[in-house]
Amino acid sequence: MRLAFSVRTTDGATSARTGTLITPHGVVDTPAFMAVGTYGAVKGIGAQDLEAIGAQIILANAYHLAERPGAERIRDLGGLHRFMGWHGPILTDSGGYQVMSLAERRRIDDDGVSFHSPLDGQVRRLTPESVIDVQAALGVDIAMVLDECVAEPAERDTVSAALERSQLWAERCRPLAERLSGGLFGIVQGGVFPDLRAAHAERLVALQFDGYAIGGLSVGESKEQTWSALKAATLGLPTDRPRYVMGMGTPDDLIEAVSYGVDLFDCVLPTRHARNGVAFTSRGRITIRHRKYADDARPLDDACCCPTCRRYSRAYLRHLKLRREMLAGVLMTLHNLWYYLDTMRAIRQAIASGTFAGLRAETASSGS
Amino acid sequence: MRLAFSVRTTDGATSARTGTLITPHGVVDTPAFMAVGTYGAVKGIGAQDLEAIGAQIILANAYHLAERPGAERIRDLGGLHRFMGWHGPILTDSGGYQVMSLAERRRIDDDGVSFHSPLDGQVRRLTPESVIDVQAALGVDIAMVLDECVAEPAERDTVSAALERSQLWAERCRPLAERLSGGLFGIVQGGVFPDLRAAHAERLVALQFDGYAIGGLSVGESKEQTWSALKAATLGLPTDRPRYVMGMGTPDDLIEAVSYGVDLFDCVLPTRHARNGVAFTSRGRITIRHRKYADDARPLDDACCCPTCRRYSRAYLRHLKLRREMLAGVLMTLHNLWYYLDTMRAIRQAIASGTFAGLRAETASSGS
Repeated sequence: MRLAFSVRTTDGATSARTGTLITPHGVVDTPAFMAVGTYGAVKGIGAQDLEAIGAQIILANAYHLAERPGAERIRDLGGLHRFMGWHGPILTDSGGYQVMSLAERRRIDDDGVSFHSPLDGQVRRLTPESVIDVQAALGVDIAMVLDECVAEPAERDTVSAALERSQLWAERCRPLAERLSGGLFGIVQGGVFPDLRAAHAERLVALQFDGYAIGGLSVGESKEQTWSALKAATLGLPTDRPRYVMGMGTPDDLIEAVSYGVDLFDCVLPTRHARNGVAFTSRGRITIRHRKYADDARPLDDACCCPTCRRYSRAYLRHLKLRREMLAGVLMTLHNLWYYLDTMRAIRQAIASGTFAGLRAETASSGS
Repeated sequence: MRLAFSVRTTDGATSARTGTLITPHGVVDTPAFMAVGTYGAVKGIGAQDLEAIGAQIILANAYHLAERPGAERIRDLGGLHRFMGWHGPILTDSGGYQVMSLAERRRIDDDGVSFHSPLDGQVRRLTPESVIDVQAALGVDIAMVLDECVAEPAERDTVSAALERSQLWAERCRPLAERLSGGLFGIVQGGVFPDLRAAHAERLVALQFDGYAIGGLSVGESKEQTWSALKAATLGLPTDRPRYVMGMGTPDDLIEAVSYGVDLFDCVLPTRHARNGVAFTSRGRITIRHRKYADDARPLDDACCCPTCRRYSRAYLRHLKLRREMLAGVLMTLHNLWYYLDTMRAIRQAIASGTFAGLRAETASSGS
């Protein structure tokens, strides 16, 4: 067993639970948020600072790293952990989503997907086997199967066909799990159609993955569609395996998704917003450029203990942002990641102490 | 006395010395290098990291901060130290150099200098009094007088006229030192003409400043000219006051300048080179983009204990640089600043232990 998961406490009113995920590179308390380091780096933040703000697991992208600097190169340099200087757990996305969103002249067949690389225009091919081999070379703790994502809105037939192909690829990936040093997650597809979600979850579960991701959410559908699809998917998943919603979301989204029993999240929102000068705070979002912060000596968030709030004022951060100082992005990113990690701590504590319903109601009324 | 300086040890063969500079915000071991934080931030590096790499004093630019966000604003926010979150000593340049190098349609007279701001095209005016008031509002530990810099190469008459005006301004600044919470330095001008340097040093010393800067060096003149001008300037300065060469230089330059009895330095070279992907190391410079580092698992410098070298390989830094990741500049800057600070530590230790001549000969033969 390269991955061990156990539920520690459950919420009485919802499917929320706290858990412990043991990986080859350490333990993750769930529900957990993974900072996004697509190219092997969380933008502007070194591994030491990620440790300092309490990150327990981060996400990278196997496809992008395979493009540059190359999976074999990283393997020969001692693996992705050593390469990044990050000694904790790493989850990688296989690249299915990137191929769908970035690549031009994409040709997909049952055996895999061919496309012209956005980097050099040359033809690349991903197959279920190749993405496992890449992730094995990287030496990650949690790998993803290859899946086919469809752009929303999509017709039921389109979604259903992509689901069938994703299932086919999952079946081919599953026996290759032994090549990995970590665990392998299947990915539930099915778009906004609850019955497709439920059916796909059931078929994936039959393959017995180490955990299950729910893909194709937060891609433009309505909130009602998100939650009904998520509910249908999670109901079909075993409670003793970790669940991961890919690419979600706002702090409020995370709390809502946790209520459906989700354990892992990743999203570019906190880091991207930070670089654009938008901070998440306990009293809502702050756009630091605004003139009203020019003389504001307060930290971004009075209630925050992050390295940025302990030392710097809104006035200083605004000055850095307006002067286009690199440090603006660095300090705002540290804050936003702390805010997300702190939200997860609050969620875990609320579940463990039986107050999750109150936390959920509170955020539903305030909104962040 | 808002500034106290004492020489601790002197080198037998040269004018090099170690000293202790006591400022309102802490003690500086000299010779010292000041990282450049022009706009109130060392690019990409927070105050906490500056502390972690052992920086004792940093430099900012009073003119740029007065433009934005404004000196009164910073004063009202509690002063520059609180604004920057940096609790150690700060030295500011007054802005004379920036006006000469940046401003268009500059008109200089004996009372000050008027120019069109590069920010908004509006007319600004700096006078000896105004630059003191700005630095008083910022609350810095060491302030600079207003001086007139000339572009090299310059005729003797031009240099001489600028020197006379700089002296006039120094005489007007000097009695205003009591407005400052820290010390005030005069600035020796005189271009590449040793006799002008010596004469100006003598006239400034008569005004009894807390310390003396040597301006207008490393601006395009030959090395021989640099050292003969520096020698002439320093010979005229009292040994019991700190000396500061503005805007210098390479690690080798620092060692050479220390031999003339210089105590303080600042330069954008380590930080700017870092952002351009060039690292200073004990074996010379490394341009991290080079293909030969693609598979290089070694740190930038085997002999270095900086946060970057303790954790990251050349291969990783090259990857970050090629991917234009912000983290490349951050990590390279931490390394280069550490290298400069470590060079100063080595210089101080060599002077104190009587081995400075050996250190100087060693670097003269290797070159960095």
